[in-house]
Amino acid sequence: MSAPFKKLALIGIGLIGSSIALAARRQGLANIIAISTRKQQTLDEARELGLGDVYMLDAIEAVRGADLVILCVPVGAYESVMQAVAPGLEPGAILSDVGSVKGHVVKTLAPLVPKGVSLIPGHPIAGTEHSGPSAGFAELFVGRWCVLTPGAEVDPAKTEKLASFWRSMGSLVEIMDAQHHDMVLAITSHIPHLVAYNIVGTVADLEAATQSEVIKFSASGFRDFTRIAASDPVMWRDVFLTNREAVLEMLGRFSEDLSVLQRAVRTGDGPALETMFTRTRAIRRSIINAGQETAAADFGRPHQAEPVPPVFIPVREHGGGDDA
Amino acid sequence: MSAPFKKLALIGIGLIGSSIALAARRQGLANIIAISTRKQQTLDEARELGLGDVYMLDAIEAVRGADLVILCVPVGAYESVMQAVAPGLEPGAILSDVGSVKGHVVKTLAPLVPKGVSLIPGHPIAGTEHSGPSAGFAELFVGRWCVLTPGAEVDPAKTEKLASFWRSMGSLVEIMDAQHHDMVLAITSHIPHLVAYNIVGTVADLEAATQSEVIKFSASGFRDFTRIAASDPVMWRDVFLTNREAVLEMLGRFSEDLSVLQRAVRTGDGPALETMFTRTRAIRRSIINAGQETAAADFGRPHQAEPVPPVFIPVREHGGGDDA
Repeated sequence: MSAPFKKLALIGIGLIGSSIALAARRQGLANIIAISTRKQQTLDEARELGLGDVYMLDAIEAVRGADLVILCVPVGAYESVMQAVAPGLEPGAILSDVGSVKGHVVKTLAPLVPKGVSLIPGHPIAGTEHSGPSAGFAELFVGRWCVLTPGAEVDPAKTEKLASFWRSMGSLVEIMDAQHHDMVLAITSHIPHLVAYNIVGTVADLEAATQSEVIKFSASGFRDFTRIAASDPVMWRDVFLTNREAVLEMLGRFSEDLSVLQRAVRTGDGPALETMFTRTRAIRRSIINAGQETAAADFGRPHQAEPVPPVFIPVREHGGGDDA
Repeated sequence: MSAPFKKLALIGIGLIGSSIALAARRQGLANIIAISTRKQQTLDEARELGLGDVYMLDAIEAVRGADLVILCVPVGAYESVMQAVAPGLEPGAILSDVGSVKGHVVKTLAPLVPKGVSLIPGHPIAGTEHSGPSAGFAELFVGRWCVLTPGAEVDPAKTEKLASFWRSMGSLVEIMDAQHHDMVLAITSHIPHLVAYNIVGTVADLEAATQSEVIKFSASGFRDFTRIAASDPVMWRDVFLTNREAVLEMLGRFSEDLSVLQRAVRTGDGPALETMFTRTRAIRRSIINAGQETAAADFGRPHQAEPVPPVFIPVREHGGGDDA
C-alpha cells in the first residue's frame, strides 16, 4: 500500500518533531522520513532512537524530493532555515511548521516560498514540559487540536491532504485565520506561560532559606506553575518576540482584572472574592467535558502509599542562565 | 493495643477532614472517631461513606470526651464554631485545625480556648481540587509536609504527640512560627491560586465564541490553571480575607516582576526573556528532587492511544455564583 506522502522531511527534531516522526511511522504516512537538525549530537540522538530513515545536518538535502516538509525549529530560526532550504523545495510540495505563533510565520516565510510550493502553517496544540528528541511519543497528538492557517492562495486539496495527515496521527483539525489563532493562543497559552515564568521568578528572588521552604511546601499550588515554567526557554522567547501585540493586549486585560482582585483583598470584600472564585469552576468543567483534561484529582498524579524520605538538593540563588 | 488517642473529634468533613478520618482509622490512631458537620446532607454522606464511628450535627457533643479535636471547617467559621464547642472541651485535650492561614487562627481561637486545653494550629500542605466528604482518601498526606505552629505556652510533649499523629498518617512534620508560615504560604499557595483564579476570570469575560476556542485549545497551558482555580471558593475567600498583609506584600513583588517581563516583551528584549525563562528550571528540579512532584511528563496525565471525539457543553457567559 502506498503511503500518502512519498517523503516527509522534518527540519528540527525536538519534542514535536520526534513525536511526528513516531506517529507518522506508526500510521504509515510516508515512505521515507528524513530528519535534519543543526547539531551533530542531536542528530546522533535521533538516529540512535531510530526516529527516521535518513539523517543529515544539511537541511537542503532533507527537503530534496520531499512532498511534505515540516519545520520543527524555534520560530526565531525560521528565516535562516528557509533561506537554506528554499532552493531545494520541489514544486507541488507542502511546506508547513509547528510554531506557536502563526501571523509572524506567514510574514517571515511567505516571501521566501518558491513558486509551486504550498505554504500551510500549522500548530499542534499539544506538548509536555520536556524537550529534545527523546521526549517525543506517538500518542502526543491523540485527541488534541491542530490548527492550520493556509493563506487564500492555497489549493484546498493541499490543505485537506495536510489535515488528513494530522487526523491520521489522532489530531482534531481546525482551520482558521492566522491573526485569530494568535489572539486565542495569547490567552490560552502565552499569558499562562508568562505568568508561570513570572511567579517562579519571584520565588527565585527570595532569600535562600525561604526558597527551600517554598520547595518543601510547593504541593500547595506552586508546583503546578513550575511545570509549565520548565518548558523550552528558546521556544518561549521566540513566542513572545513574535506575538507581541496579542500578548500585550491580553496581558493588559489580565493586569486590569488582577487590580480588581487586589483591591477586593485589600478592602476585605468577601462577597466579591467568593463570586470571582465560583465562576471559574464552569470553565474547568467545560474543558473536562471537551476531552481536553482528566477529571482525576491532581491531574491523576500518583499518591504513594508509603512515606518517602525527602531529599534536598541546594537551591541555586539569583539568576544565571546556563542550564537550558 | 490501645490507640494514641481515645477520641478524635473532626469538626467539618470536607476533603481534609475525610482524609484524616480514613488515614486515622487505617493507622489505628483513635479508639473513636466522632464527626460533626453543620449540614444534615453532608453528615448523611459521611455516614454512608463510613468515615467515623459517631455522627452529630451538634459540634459540642462531638468534642465531649475527645482528647484530640481538629477543626476542618473554613477559617471564616472558626469563631462561631469555637464559641459553640468551648464549653465541651476537656482539660488535657489538644485543639488543632487544618486551615491554610495560621496567624489569624491564633488571634481568633486563643482568647476562646479554655484553661488546660492545648491550642496547636496545624496545616497539612496537601490537597486536590476536589471538595466534600467523598473527595478524601487515606494516602493524601503521605510524603507531604504538615506545619504545626504551637504558641510558646504549649507543653512540648503535646506538640510531639500531635506531630506523631501526623507522621503516622505519612506526613513530614515541620514546626514554625505562625507569621513565618503565612508569609511562605502566601507565595507558594495563595498567590498561585489568586493568579489562577484571575486568568480563568479573564477568559470568562471573553465573548462566547472565543471562549469556546479557549476550551478547545486549553491543553496549551490554560487547563493547568483551571485545576487550581477549581478549588473550594469559600475556603479561598477566607484565606484572602485572613492573610491580607502577606498576600499583598507578595502580590506587590509579583506585579513588579511582571512589569519587568512586560517591558521585555514590549521592547523585544530576547536575551532578557531567555535568561528569565531559563533560571526557573532549577526550581522545578529541586521540587522533583524533594519528592514533592512527579517528573513524568504532563504530571503523568494519561495520553490515550485512540482519538476521542470531542463533546462540547455550552460555556456559561459572564458571572453568576450559583454552582459552588
